[in-house]
Amino acid sequence: MNVEPSLADFRQAHERIEPFIHRTPVLTSVTINRMTGGEIFFKCENLQKAGAFKIRGASNAVLSLSDDEAKRGVATHSSGNHAAALALAAQWRGIPAYVVMPETAPHVKKLAVAGYGAEIIFCKPTLEARERALAEVVARTGAAFVHPYNDLRVIAGQGTAAIELCEQVQNLDLVVAPVGGGGLLSGTAVAVSVISPRTEVIAAEPEGADDAYRSLKSGRIVPSVHPNTIADGLLTSLGDLTFPIIQRRVRDIVLVSEEAIVEAMRCLWERMKILVEPSGAVPLGAILSRRLDVKGRRVGIIVSGGNVDLDRLPWIHKS
Amino acid sequence: MNVEPSLADFRQAHERIEPFIHRTPVLTSVTINRMTGGEIFFKCENLQKAGAFKIRGASNAVLSLSDDEAKRGVATHSSGNHAAALALAAQWRGIPAYVVMPETAPHVKKLAVAGYGAEIIFCKPTLEARERALAEVVARTGAAFVHPYNDLRVIAGQGTAAIELCEQVQNLDLVVAPVGGGGLLSGTAVAVSVISPRTEVIAAEPEGADDAYRSLKSGRIVPSVHPNTIADGLLTSLGDLTFPIIQRRVRDIVLVSEEAIVEAMRCLWERMKILVEPSGAVPLGAILSRRLDVKGRRVGIIVSGGNVDLDRLPWIHKS
Repeated sequence: MNVEPSLADFRQAHERIEPFIHRTPVLTSVTINRMTGGEIFFKCENLQKAGAFKIRGASNAVLSLSDDEAKRGVATHSSGNHAAALALAAQWRGIPAYVVMPETAPHVKKLAVAGYGAEIIFCKPTLEARERALAEVVARTGAAFVHPYNDLRVIAGQGTAAIELCEQVQNLDLVVAPVGGGGLLSGTAVAVSVISPRTEVIAAEPEGADDAYRSLKSGRIVPSVHPNTIADGLLTSLGDLTFPIIQRRVRDIVLVSEEAIVEAMRCLWERMKILVEPSGAVPLGAILSRRLDVKGRRVGIIVSGGNVDLDRLPWIHKS
Repeated sequence: MNVEPSLADFRQAHERIEPFIHRTPVLTSVTINRMTGGEIFFKCENLQKAGAFKIRGASNAVLSLSDDEAKRGVATHSSGNHAAALALAAQWRGIPAYVVMPETAPHVKKLAVAGYGAEIIFCKPTLEARERALAEVVARTGAAFVHPYNDLRVIAGQGTAAIELCEQVQNLDLVVAPVGGGGLLSGTAVAVSVISPRTEVIAAEPEGADDAYRSLKSGRIVPSVHPNTIADGLLTSLGDLTFPIIQRRVRDIVLVSEEAIVEAMRCLWERMKILVEPSGAVPLGAILSRRLDVKGRRVGIIVSGGNVDLDRLPWIHKS
């Protein structure tokens, strides 16, 4: 497939979701600039509603539905930030949300989704059980399925963070985003290419979940099998919508060690005074560990989220 | 004394320091609004350079000096955020900074001050030793003493945070700031009174360091003796410049328990995804513990700082 959102799609998405979301700030640190030799602009989606960029795509999808579709609700399977985001967006529109979750999902994630008023359908922690449970709930309710990333409305919504970033900071040489399923990355890459064509987009990915890297190198989607990383937002495989966009629009994917992710996360907390989840620290990890050279360049980083368990910090509680 | 900064003083201070400091964002949380019944706007000075509002006053003082005065440097006694801020401001101007610190100060504080290039003069941890060491360094170098709060240039500088807040958010009913020595509080109170006269200013103070509360009630400065609170930025006594301003301009001071401070701190971390030090959480602590009712009101809170030891968090490491 060769489809991607247009500038008009991003503008419409932004208009639709703007009354509901935060225009998140762009923060800078002289110390981090000195450490890296670049000029880095952090687009703080960790300060976004529900603590991550995910609300952009989820709310764009929910607000795109016709009234007839919407009244039957929305459904998804996810144990992470997308589930909470979809639940919140459905609450804004006053429609039901159905979330299929493995029984084994962390208690805090269940609480977050339930707190936004979604109905949770528990299933066994297998792909098959999850898909069957989702099919059942869609058949029963007529709810519209909103995939966490492999959906053009979601991709366009996620790209609005980069649209704002390019408005807030001119003349970026480079934008770096983390990659899991590729919704944020593909949306970012297209948005940057339409609004600031000379700006490169590069992705950062954990070494322990390097399926997007291997996909890009081999030219076909390599599934994520037994990923092992602290960056729990980046465990999923690319989709058949996100992968071709990434092939066309993303310059490179660089890999980041677990140690570098934790170091970058702590650096962001200490220097910037913001909570960033491991997934959101992967781009800075790439830079601090010298996998990505930013010397003399103006670099935007999408800080994807800030949802962490404050009772378990990686530098205190070694796993 | 009946002196206080004028609107012109605030404008000049702001013009002087604006090229060097961050215009910090104002953040909001639907969840915290729902918890409190008010509409709360957090002015995030924890995201300020050197991690606290202190750089505003320190840099205004340093940049106010004539070239002749400046070249001999600046001096202060402090083991906290003011010392780091003064060192950084001196570095910006390219002049020496001398900081008198008790030998017993935490290692991280020494590192921060030394990291900004200041010369540290260690002394015994008594008021007498500190004052003698400061007098000696001033006599030896001719450096200009910049008091942490009892100085009109510092008070005007601290007030610029409230000036920005009132520009960023109109029609506030109330502004709440923490109080230690009263530099931030007095600057905030005068700034708000000149720029938004209908807005009230209220202070929040830890129960374990309630000297400002007792000073306001008794009409004379009650010194802070053996303060005992996790809010380590609020241990000092009011000064003869800050106290009269507070008497004239601050509507009330409310006291906050240690438990409420930690609860508010964790709430800010979890809900807003920002690092806030205990002192910066005291105003929200006053509201969450129902000592200050904000129902139906538009409330600005000065989040004073974010300098915490990430290896010791109060909800993990009980003291």
